[in-house]
Amino acid sequence: MLGFKKKSSHKVGLPPGSFHYIGSHRTEPVNISTFRYGHNFFEEKNNLSLDEALIELPHGQFLWVNFIGIHEIVSVERICNFYNIHPLTIEDILSTEQRPKLEENEDYIYLVVKMLEFQESSRKFHVEQVSMILGKNMVISFQEKEGDTFDAVRNRLRSGKGRIQKAGSDYLLYTLVDTIIDNYFILLEKMGDVIEEVEEDLLLGPGESTLTQLYNLKRDTVVLRRSIWPLREVVHKLERDDMKLIKKETRLYLRDVYDHTIRIIETIENFRDMLSSMVDLYQSTLSNRMNVVMKVLTIISTIFIPLTFIAGIYGMNFEYMPELGWKYGYLGVWIIMITVVFIMLFFFRKKKWI
Amino acid sequence: MLGFKKKSSHKVGLPPGSFHYIGSHRTEPVNISTFRYGHNFFEEKNNLSLDEALIELPHGQFLWVNFIGIHEIVSVERICNFYNIHPLTIEDILSTEQRPKLEENEDYIYLVVKMLEFQESSRKFHVEQVSMILGKNMVISFQEKEGDTFDAVRNRLRSGKGRIQKAGSDYLLYTLVDTIIDNYFILLEKMGDVIEEVEEDLLLGPGESTLTQLYNLKRDTVVLRRSIWPLREVVHKLERDDMKLIKKETRLYLRDVYDHTIRIIETIENFRDMLSSMVDLYQSTLSNRMNVVMKVLTIISTIFIPLTFIAGIYGMNFEYMPELGWKYGYLGVWIIMITVVFIMLFFFRKKKWI
Amino acid sequence: MLGFKKKSSHKVGLPPGSFHYIGSHRTEPVNISTFRYGHNFFEEKNNLSLDEALIELPHGQFLWVNFIGIHEIVSVERICNFYNIHPLTIEDILSTEQRPKLEENEDYIYLVVKMLEFQESSRKFHVEQVSMILGKNMVISFQEKEGDTFDAVRNRLRSGKGRIQKAGSDYLLYTLVDTIIDNYFILLEKMGDVIEEVEEDLLLGPGESTLTQLYNLKRDTVVLRRSIWPLREVVHKLERDDMKLIKKETRLYLRDVYDHTIRIIETIENFRDMLSSMVDLYQSTLSNRMNVVMKVLTIISTIFIPLTFIAGIYGMNFEYMPELGWKYGYLGVWIIMITVVFIMLFFFRKKKWI
Amino acid sequence: MLGFKKKSSHKVGLPPGSFHYIGSHRTEPVNISTFRYGHNFFEEKNNLSLDEALIELPHGQFLWVNFIGIHEIVSVERICNFYNIHPLTIEDILSTEQRPKLEENEDYIYLVVKMLEFQESSRKFHVEQVSMILGKNMVISFQEKEGDTFDAVRNRLRSGKGRIQKAGSDYLLYTLVDTIIDNYFILLEKMGDVIEEVEEDLLLGPGESTLTQLYNLKRDTVVLRRSIWPLREVVHKLERDDMKLIKKETRLYLRDVYDHTIRIIETIENFRDMLSSMVDLYQSTLSNRMNVVMKVLTIISTIFIPLTFIAGIYGMNFEYMPELGWKYGYLGVWIIMITVVFIMLFFFRKKKWI
Amino acid sequence: MLGFKKKSSHKVGLPPGSFHYIGSHRTEPVNISTFRYGHNFFEEKNNLSLDEALIELPHGQFLWVNFIGIHEIVSVERICNFYNIHPLTIEDILSTEQRPKLEENEDYIYLVVKMLEFQESSRKFHVEQVSMILGKNMVISFQEKEGDTFDAVRNRLRSGKGRIQKAGSDYLLYTLVDTIIDNYFILLEKMGDVIEEVEEDLLLGPGESTLTQLYNLKRDTVVLRRSIWPLREVVHKLERDDMKLIKKETRLYLRDVYDHTIRIIETIENFRDMLSSMVDLYQSTLSNRMNVVMKVLTIISTIFIPLTFIAGIYGMNFEYMPELGWKYGYLGVWIIMITVVFIMLFFFRKKKWI
Repeated sequence: MLGFKKKSSHKVGLPPGSFHYIGSHRTEPVNISTFRYGHNFFEEKNNLSLDEALIELPHGQFLWVNFIGIHEIVSVERICNFYNIHPLTIEDILSTEQRPKLEENEDYIYLVVKMLEFQESSRKFHVEQVSMILGKNMVISFQEKEGDTFDAVRNRLRSGKGRIQKAGSDYLLYTLVDTIIDNYFILLEKMGDVIEEVEEDLLLGPGESTLTQLYNLKRDTVVLRRSIWPLREVVHKLERDDMKLIKKETRLYLRDVYDHTIRIIETIENFRDMLSSMVDLYQSTLSNRMNVVMKVLTIISTIFIPLTFIAGIYGMNFEYMPELGWKYGYLGVWIIMITVVFIMLFFFRKKKWI
Repeated sequence: MLGFKKKSSHKVGLPPGSFHYIGSHRTEPVNISTFRYGHNFFEEKNNLSLDEALIELPHGQFLWVNFIGIHEIVSVERICNFYNIHPLTIEDILSTEQRPKLEENEDYIYLVVKMLEFQESSRKFHVEQVSMILGKNMVISFQEKEGDTFDAVRNRLRSGKGRIQKAGSDYLLYTLVDTIIDNYFILLEKMGDVIEEVEEDLLLGPGESTLTQLYNLKRDTVVLRRSIWPLREVVHKLERDDMKLIKKETRLYLRDVYDHTIRIIETIENFRDMLSSMVDLYQSTLSNRMNVVMKVLTIISTIFIPLTFIAGIYGMNFEYMPELGWKYGYLGVWIIMITVVFIMLFFFRKKKWI
Repeated sequence: MLGFKKKSSHKVGLPPGSFHYIGSHRTEPVNISTFRYGHNFFEEKNNLSLDEALIELPHGQFLWVNFIGIHEIVSVERICNFYNIHPLTIEDILSTEQRPKLEENEDYIYLVVKMLEFQESSRKFHVEQVSMILGKNMVISFQEKEGDTFDAVRNRLRSGKGRIQKAGSDYLLYTLVDTIIDNYFILLEKMGDVIEEVEEDLLLGPGESTLTQLYNLKRDTVVLRRSIWPLREVVHKLERDDMKLIKKETRLYLRDVYDHTIRIIETIENFRDMLSSMVDLYQSTLSNRMNVVMKVLTIISTIFIPLTFIAGIYGMNFEYMPELGWKYGYLGVWIIMITVVFIMLFFFRKKKWI
Repeated sequence: MLGFKKKSSHKVGLPPGSFHYIGSHRTEPVNISTFRYGHNFFEEKNNLSLDEALIELPHGQFLWVNFIGIHEIVSVERICNFYNIHPLTIEDILSTEQRPKLEENEDYIYLVVKMLEFQESSRKFHVEQVSMILGKNMVISFQEKEGDTFDAVRNRLRSGKGRIQKAGSDYLLYTLVDTIIDNYFILLEKMGDVIEEVEEDLLLGPGESTLTQLYNLKRDTVVLRRSIWPLREVVHKLERDDMKLIKKETRLYLRDVYDHTIRIIETIENFRDMLSSMVDLYQSTLSNRMNVVMKVLTIISTIFIPLTFIAGIYGMNFEYMPELGWKYGYLGVWIIMITVVFIMLFFFRKKKWI
Repeated sequence: MLGFKKKSSHKVGLPPGSFHYIGSHRTEPVNISTFRYGHNFFEEKNNLSLDEALIELPHGQFLWVNFIGIHEIVSVERICNFYNIHPLTIEDILSTEQRPKLEENEDYIYLVVKMLEFQESSRKFHVEQVSMILGKNMVISFQEKEGDTFDAVRNRLRSGKGRIQKAGSDYLLYTLVDTIIDNYFILLEKMGDVIEEVEEDLLLGPGESTLTQLYNLKRDTVVLRRSIWPLREVVHKLERDDMKLIKKETRLYLRDVYDHTIRIIETIENFRDMLSSMVDLYQSTLSNRMNVVMKVLTIISTIFIPLTFIAGIYGMNFEYMPELGWKYGYLGVWIIMITVVFIMLFFFRKKKWI
């Protein structure tokens, strides 16, 4: 979950250029789709064989190749070689532990982002890596496994409405990145809900599990930050730098994505702030409770221990104990005891314990 | 309250340019006012229909359109289109979760700030988003709901005194931003009062509710910071950058606003510092109290437990217990007990417990 | 004391240029002094009427106008208008909540610094704002109330010794700022003394009031930082920027002032570090004490509770309790009890509790 | 282990240029290997005498000299003098406490990195310093002691496959640095495993040793950071700066190494975050347990102390105690006692203690 | 010790240029030595009168004046005037509270560094200020009191070996600074030893004094940081800036000194990290112990309190208590008690308390 579990150590010492898949073990078959589109033109093909995906693109058309299943090294390698992708980029595509980054190469831009999913059942995040390559008139995206995040994009392409079909590949790349980042909001909302639940628990009175929940939430924010912080720089580069593959019109949209990224980062920082306040609150609540418990114990003990002592005195079996014979001895002891109790209560009230 | 509750996820996957209102549900009708003014000229119109608000401005006049009720998407869209506002800006106007920001477009400057109100009843902040567009000779402001913050500006316009009527639209924008930021001072004063109250409680002896109050104050500063920190950059940009829509004379006034913003941010940081000191103080006070409670318990127990033991000894029913028959046995036991008590007290005093 | 108490909210919504005094209520009359000096020439006038203070300065002479009592708005306004001070600067002079800042205007430099005084009686800081305007050949200083900080400067002017009379107004400004900043050292020394006192208390054994003292010291450093941090930038600007009103020779002296400012800031940061270490120490000392108290309680209880139980056993009144009739029963019980005590003590020693 | 134990103080006051070995005492003999290679050419020599290692390199060939055993000062000095290495560089090679750094000299680049090894037995890190010198067509590497980290590089050189034999010395340097940095991943994985173990312990219920383990892990991250943080700058310099000894093609590979370094640093920062969360969790768990213990004590005490008191009352030996003679006295006492217990239990349930 | 104790307030209000010694009171006589050297030439004079120290330097020779005893203001002033030192610099030389700094004046570079000494007896740092002036062909150094730190430099000068006699004054300055900084390593080693001792104590079981020791170590790091942090900037300036008094060859050596400074700063930061971890460890260890103490108390109390109650029951003196007459009553009570004990023990084992 934290990235250091994926045994990237298997690759140590190998020369660059010998490709290895680093990630969870998978056996699903590869699924390649292509979307060719242009002015008044749209063609979608699914479940292609590898050879069908290697397309020479006519002028004026745009291509999106969506490749699912990067555990099939050979297919990734072939498709990348066909489109002239540098071996180091191929290596990065295959290694699912990349941190989000943007690399500008001679002919293409290489982009890595993280897709996050919150699994309700296990209350854990699932992190998937998506690599995207923006070439001239084309985008290739590499996913680890099937998912429905890009469905909205597909539908917009199919419908042919909006800018998406007319604008170039850079706009498509923007759409994909925007979709992924918009998904973070859903995630943050779910996480926000969980945090508010825990907060309510905390204010009403924390139970056994509150501590573990708080700890897990804190861990989650660590994972989230790791995935999202570098994104800031990535989107910033996309928007700012004079990249020749990104048109000026698209840059305006990317500025919008950048704003979203900042907002997401701020929300995570807020979560962190709140969670650490909540841990403080938890600690103080515990101390508070301890105080109450101690006070009760002290009051009870302090009242009864002297009384028991007095009773103990007159339980002694000495032959010469004059008080035992007195007529009002027993009554006197009661009076003494009640006096002691009242003095105690007065003392406690002065100390503001009761 | 923290921004992640407004379900911005409803918009995920939609193309940019399809407008959606994101914010609290509202049903109040839209309220549009226009203020046209210039050299020796002032005209105010309220409760306009949408069409009346679309004004072709004669040369030498200035216009302020105040639009209340951005939940009516269609009206916002039409007015924006009339004045050539970019679709992405319209989207931002409609989404009330923006962080304060400044965008310089070709023909206009787009500005988002947050209006904060402290609701005495619920002791909570109400956050309202205000979008402002500074065009050539005109300002359009978009509010979520009716409020009286801008009344002072309206009055100054009506009275025709001061620079406001003669100076251009950039000066009006400055006036609006200044008014909003000056309002923060009221808020901070109220919050400062609450903090001082809690502090006094804390120094006198914290009660049950002090902890929750501290926690809520801490949360409030988180919300405040989120709304105000980005403002620094916004006002800085307005003042510094060579924006062609801002005249040089106005820049001097904006520098003043910038100073105010810095002061507000510093005050919030001070609040944060003080609150975390107060949490420390709370914790220490609790520990202190616990110590006092424990000391009392220990003193009482340590004195009476041995005494009770001695009494217990002579409460035993052995047939052959010589002490029981001694004439001064009872007296002797009392002497032993009193001696024990004095030794104890001496020990406690040495330990500085009493 | 923290700046948010001075009700700057009274000004909200007013146009810039309508002057309002913001600060503690005062009734003392205004006190204006002027010092005219030049080569071999010195003239001092005190308790001037406003009109006398408006001086047309002959060539080659320098002027220092010291104005005490800025609550008299009208006087401040007139004097400022006479010397061509911008309305926004006048507003700043009147508002005593400014943070230290430096503004370079066309004809003059405007400077705000804080004068700090430690009041022995209340052990609190008194913060006074001093505004200074450096024009060509003249300095105007605005104080809230009478004080003796500038006496040393006056004496040096009168004596005519040193550079002060020959060097220009910029050197006078340097002298005033230097005097104010040197005063901080006295303050920090006093504060350092208090901190060392509290530290000693802490190491010997903290009492009831130590916690409150620590908390107050922490608050004081917050106030101090707020007043002094911005000073760094102010003095830096004075020294570095190519300001035409500051001569090159004076810059060397200002670098010296800058060094002092850095040293003051460092000392405050040291205080903060030390205070937070001291709070930690306090907490640990409390825990330590609690541990000692608990240990004593545990040792006493653990020893006597079983003994009391044994005594209780033989205090029962069963008819058939064979031990009661044994000749050495009583002695045997004592032996058992003493054995128990020794086992306990051995156990405690092993645990290193005694 | 933390670098300040290696007694670098022995060198204090000596002039630069008088060489001293600073590091653990070693006696192993020096081991020098040379690898000469070029287009279709490869020659490896091991266990060379010093003189054999001083090679005049024919044009078009590349040389790698691997020197193991820097405690033999004389050998290091001679080899460095032969290749024109500056005395200050020699000093740095001999001192094993360097922090990772890169120095560009006239004819060569000098590079210091740390090789880290996790010793399973002692659960400690072993830090070894590796110095590398990149000259024109040659690399000299200095190690403290024999190790197998560079075996993979040797094998790739021998096999003649990949870029390594054809590309120049800068590519060899990249390979060596890459190998060392890839080794960090193994280390981080091992450390990650240990952290997860401790975390599991913590969530199940921390034992005696958990605290020490946490503390040791924290210390380890301090050591790790110290060794790895400066690496970032080193690799960054290698990649970015226009160094004439690094070819443009190699720079692409170095960017890859830079990415790895960032990822390693991030992982360490994550470890730090997690460890401090875990310390918090540990503290809270302890407080929680204490609370449970206290509650049990309080419940037991609070129930039985009053009962024991009642029993004590009727254990008194007064002659006139009417209750003692009542027929249902004993039964009555039991009824009172049971009532008291029920009241107590009701009170505890209301307090939510049971 | 922290700089605010040296009463720099005595100087407040005085004009710059009136010299005052600020530092510990001293009465030792001044000790001036001069070292004149050049190509094949060396002349050393000790215990000079002031007049002998004012030397007109022949061309091609270098001079080092070492002045010990800056409390003799007049001597410092005369020597400085002779060599054309600016009054502000003289002031700085006389004030021993300077923070390390570098000032480049027209004809000379003025340098302040701190010499640190760890006094074994009091376990405290002694801080001494050393001012150095690098002029053309000469260095003047000002010390507070006699010491042996510069002995090594003197010996190297006398021996005439190495670069020192041939290289110019800038190299001498480097040697002096290098010697002072190398001395820090000794200090850090000693401090490191103390930290490791305390750490060992902590892991074995902290005693009474551990807390105070930790606190003092933390204070020491505060002092150390204060003296050393600014050094970084100082050495950096020396090395980087194009100062005309520093030759290019010397710059290489200064880079080495810069590396050392960074390493020293890093070590101090490590100490800080470790100390704060140790404070955490201390706190947790205390809590742990408290827990153990509480558990023992709870186990003992929880076992014996109910038993004592049972014994109390049958110690009552009611006339009608049927159990007392039963033959196996006493035996039965024992059986009940033992059963209770076993239930308790079972409960504690389930709770994992024993």
